Amino acid sequence: MPGEFALIDRIRDRAGRRDDVVRGIGDDAAVLALPAGHELVVTCDTLVAGVHFPEETLPADIGYKALAVNLSDLAAMAAAPAWCTLAMTLPDSDDAWLDDFLDGFLALADEHGVSLVGGDTTAGPLTITVTAHGLVPAGQALLRSSARAGEDIWVTGTLGDAAGALAQWRQRGPASAKLRYRLDRPTPRVQAGVALRGLASAGIDVSDGLAADLGHVLAASGVGARVDLGRLPCSRTLADHFEENRRWELQLGGGDDYEICFTAPAANALAIEQAMAALDLPATVVGQLEAEPGLRLLTPEGGAWSPPATGYQHFQGGHA
Amino acid sequence: MPGEFALIDRIRDRAGRRDDVVRGIGDDAAVLALPAGHELVVTCDTLVAGVHFPEETLPADIGYKALAVNLSDLAAMAAAPAWCTLAMTLPDSDDAWLDDFLDGFLALADEHGVSLVGGDTTAGPLTITVTAHGLVPAGQALLRSSARAGEDIWVTGTLGDAAGALAQWRQRGPASAKLRYRLDRPTPRVQAGVALRGLASAGIDVSDGLAADLGHVLAASGVGARVDLGRLPCSRTLADHFEENRRWELQLGGGDDYEICFTAPAANALAIEQAMAALDLPATVVGQLEAEPGLRLLTPEGGAWSPPATGYQHFQGGHA
Repeated sequence: MPGEFALIDRIRDRAGRRDDVVRGIGDDAAVLALPAGHELVVTCDTLVAGVHFPEETLPADIGYKALAVNLSDLAAMAAAPAWCTLAMTLPDSDDAWLDDFLDGFLALADEHGVSLVGGDTTAGPLTITVTAHGLVPAGQALLRSSARAGEDIWVTGTLGDAAGALAQWRQRGPASAKLRYRLDRPTPRVQAGVALRGLASAGIDVSDGLAADLGHVLAASGVGARVDLGRLPCSRTLADHFEENRRWELQLGGGDDYEICFTAPAANALAIEQAMAALDLPATVVGQLEAEPGLRLLTPEGGAWSPPATGYQHFQGGHA
Repeated sequence: MPGEFALIDRIRDRAGRRDDVVRGIGDDAAVLALPAGHELVVTCDTLVAGVHFPEETLPADIGYKALAVNLSDLAAMAAAPAWCTLAMTLPDSDDAWLDDFLDGFLALADEHGVSLVGGDTTAGPLTITVTAHGLVPAGQALLRSSARAGEDIWVTGTLGDAAGALAQWRQRGPASAKLRYRLDRPTPRVQAGVALRGLASAGIDVSDGLAADLGHVLAASGVGARVDLGRLPCSRTLADHFEENRRWELQLGGGDDYEICFTAPAANALAIEQAMAALDLPATVVGQLEAEPGLRLLTPEGGAWSPPATGYQHFQGGHA
């Protein structure tokens, strides 16, 4: 695109730099030094305007979220984030928009010591692809496939706020700023992921809804699960805006929370509680893994419960 | 997007797998084992329909080129390619299109032993972002900044074919299939890049045109250069279709060749010729680095020459 080099300079001038970045933005590729005894963890997520976020989302929030969803994937693998690349397709060269976008993107990058080491800018409809790189001691990555029957199922933080914000946005009615903030500025659970090394058996981030995401763990591990709806952690704000059945629906079927769902032997429960308390992050046991395949949802009264819709495919222009 | 998981399964089933891929497609992120003593080289390029290739380009050619341009960047750093991620924004779920795209993409990946380890598929205007990862022994990456005055300037293969194809495409007149093939199926000089370790001092791939790309090396290294137009390597096909002045213009200002331009001390010339001969790839000295800043273009008669346009910003919808 005309002005591509100016854009790249603009980004390079603002990108942070770690000591292990031998060469960052400004060559054919980045060169990165790797610590011995570690494995590289790589994830890649795309955000498209009108698909993954409402068109009117603030550029700083788009920038923040584009990185956050990738850091969340690294967290779910127990990897410490290190570097990222940023590919942006932009409808036009708008320096103010780009600066706002970078404000959100780089604030989160700096918070977690992540260096932006490369990328590409092209002309076209607004699309953001981030590839994030993390490091984990060899053999300690938290996979989806190593959950075992009998273990506890945990989630960090609370579930359903982001889905609540989307539901309010779709109804064009009263909207909670607190819920909307959780949709626009999800907190990737980076420190929690690292702290779970050696304690958790399997993990996934909750991007598509607890039922779907836990379902991936169950399928990969060849187990089933029972989830107690009464134990699903819920923010006070969500409880203020939605009644119980609707909440369960949002918590199980709604995505975009970017909490971590993980599994662990019951013997690790105390150590996990202490590790999460040290991070000031609540973590809650919401059910147990069982040998019988499938996901069973139980009400506080012990009855079976079925959500009206278990799938969730992100924002999708208001008609998910 | 609806069907996202089916699409990912379709891609996963066809992706190759290296021994160092601890975990490929199918978790929150890929986990990759790294050899000791190496640095990681990372590059990221986006192709947008109508910007980087004509809309009617065959899906297999789009797939091939999306990976080729990234492998070319790794080659220019002297890195051996290892893994890649693929982020695709697709207007609709078209299995036949995707299979054709993967035919091109994976054929090139297999040729170079590259594993596709992750990615994302979303709904939206056709955009392809590939992030490629390579490995290089620590300290041996070929940077742009280490060229020195007095050294030779080399290019691999021939220059100008891709730009010739674009020129013919724009005129909607007679077109050479050979030239068009070089535009659609550029050969990333992967083995050449690796062979140049320890021989070349600096390198860059010719994506924006020799004048612009060599200009990046000159700027990064703080040197100037003299290029002899009569020595620019030219295919017989290009010579058949364009007269001399127009050829120089295409060779200097036209991009998309994805040859490597590199610099080296004259003492290494014989070793370089032997290394390139072993790969059956011609390499040609086209000029010398000089202390005086700037790029001087000399005709075979020794006169100064200025191209009508030195910049080149890819295809850009037919009006670059």
